[in-house]
Amino acid sequence: MHSEPASLLRQFRRYPAVEFGRYRRFVVADHHVGWVAPDFARELATFPQVFHLDDQAVLFHDRFTEAADRSRAIAEVLAALRERGLVPGWRGELYPVNRRFEETPLLLMERAATPLFGVLSYGVNVNGLVRDGGGWKVWVARRSASKQVDPNMLDLVVGGGLPHGISIRDNVLKECAEEAGIPAALARQAKPAGLVTLMIAAPEGLRLGVQFNFDLELPADFTPRNTDGEVAEFQLWSLDRLERNLREADDFMFDVALVNLDLLVRLGRVGPDDPDYLDIVANLRRSIPFVRT
Amino acid sequence: MHSEPASLLRQFRRYPAVEFGRYRRFVVADHHVGWVAPDFARELATFPQVFHLDDQAVLFHDRFTEAADRSRAIAEVLAALRERGLVPGWRGELYPVNRRFEETPLLLMERAATPLFGVLSYGVNVNGLVRDGGGWKVWVARRSASKQVDPNMLDLVVGGGLPHGISIRDNVLKECAEEAGIPAALARQAKPAGLVTLMIAAPEGLRLGVQFNFDLELPADFTPRNTDGEVAEFQLWSLDRLERNLREADDFMFDVALVNLDLLVRLGRVGPDDPDYLDIVANLRRSIPFVRT
Repeated sequence: MHSEPASLLRQFRRYPAVEFGRYRRFVVADHHVGWVAPDFARELATFPQVFHLDDQAVLFHDRFTEAADRSRAIAEVLAALRERGLVPGWRGELYPVNRRFEETPLLLMERAATPLFGVLSYGVNVNGLVRDGGGWKVWVARRSASKQVDPNMLDLVVGGGLPHGISIRDNVLKECAEEAGIPAALARQAKPAGLVTLMIAAPEGLRLGVQFNFDLELPADFTPRNTDGEVAEFQLWSLDRLERNLREADDFMFDVALVNLDLLVRLGRVGPDDPDYLDIVANLRRSIPFVRT
Repeated sequence: MHSEPASLLRQFRRYPAVEFGRYRRFVVADHHVGWVAPDFARELATFPQVFHLDDQAVLFHDRFTEAADRSRAIAEVLAALRERGLVPGWRGELYPVNRRFEETPLLLMERAATPLFGVLSYGVNVNGLVRDGGGWKVWVARRSASKQVDPNMLDLVVGGGLPHGISIRDNVLKECAEEAGIPAALARQAKPAGLVTLMIAAPEGLRLGVQFNFDLELPADFTPRNTDGEVAEFQLWSLDRLERNLREADDFMFDVALVNLDLLVRLGRVGPDDPDYLDIVANLRRSIPFVRT
């Protein structure tokens, strides 16, 4: 019996859609840069020297006029909230908060807090591709069981958040080395290939993000080798297997699933013949609503 | 003296942004499918047997319940408006009007009227690529001086609107043959590569569209040959030349410029090093606002 293949849209249905009306705007120096859930806003209200709340927004107190001062103040708040168990998954990495990627940050914030403030975070991803006749195979990583976030789930060969103070290019090189043992001379051949956006209501808060994607052709005789203990194993998959998995399972991390869907679209594996094509492509670059101020 | 290269965002600035608040919704069978400018709405009001106007919308009269009846009625209206000179550029091609690409059309409408009703139209495009060492060159067409729309402007090697009654694939094959003399066996190797959306206030009305893009690798010894008189000449361009032209000139048709920008992004020629990268990518898939009903 022939049955229709399952829809790739399942990957966009793993988390509820974000109801922005439920959130207060997070405003820094008159710029709308995030979204705070009501419960967390109540916690922030207990720090009136740092945050001012009105009906619709959580505002960074305007007595702070420098990024460094704001960063210090929010670090103290977050340290206190962490003691109360309200900042799970502390990373010890500072992420920039700004209106636009290129702009000087308005403040720096512990990575684990970014979903709580609903600020945009950035990441880099590398699709590790190996020629397979006229087509491609792709390296897939399984995260180690000890990873704080999404242990055992399937991942890209290389990917990671983009902290403050490192360029996209340098981060690609660094993650290539750490996660997959890819030497710099090879990693430098990674080519930018567009981006996907993330916009989900995750258990840890709002995950709003922009993922910069790269494609890297790896030689057939190269095998990725993890150097930081974060990967349990690497597997070389056919695009058929990748597509089937994305249709039928939630084995990949959510953001990685989107990067893989974008790859399948760009390589022409998913095209207009798929009844969900327009929705898939639209969802890969959901527009994240910030009020321009 | 070194100067910053001009911004690729110029291509998105060639037409004013659409102020949807100025337009009335075009509603068919309770579905919002288009946007009508005030002047044109006044013309439509002179056909009360076909259109009903309220404060915010132009509604197709609900005595029409079948697509065929609506298509016949709007054809009569458009014939009358054409006599008054209000439907310039008549094509004699019927375009489907619907809420979703895959759905059965709510009605068919003369192509030249689609910007007047602000309905979504669809097109197919083929990037004609030729290997050039490790990179690519791209075929560029100059439209013939006698073309009704955009005479003499630069175009893709193959591209065209998607009328009712032909599949995307078949349209690619048909346009490949007519516009560039690409035989079917070669044209069938065109691979889907994503899409771009159009959303501009053009002189002829609102151009809202979805362009399905394909990449086709052409052999180095193949030269496109136009068979329908619509192309004045073909030129093989380096990606450098393409990028420079898009930065500095408005030589390409607007929609073609977007397809070319998408190509440069996908091939990694325009990447995160470009300060406008995020805006470029976001603008390539502007979300077209229809009120889901």
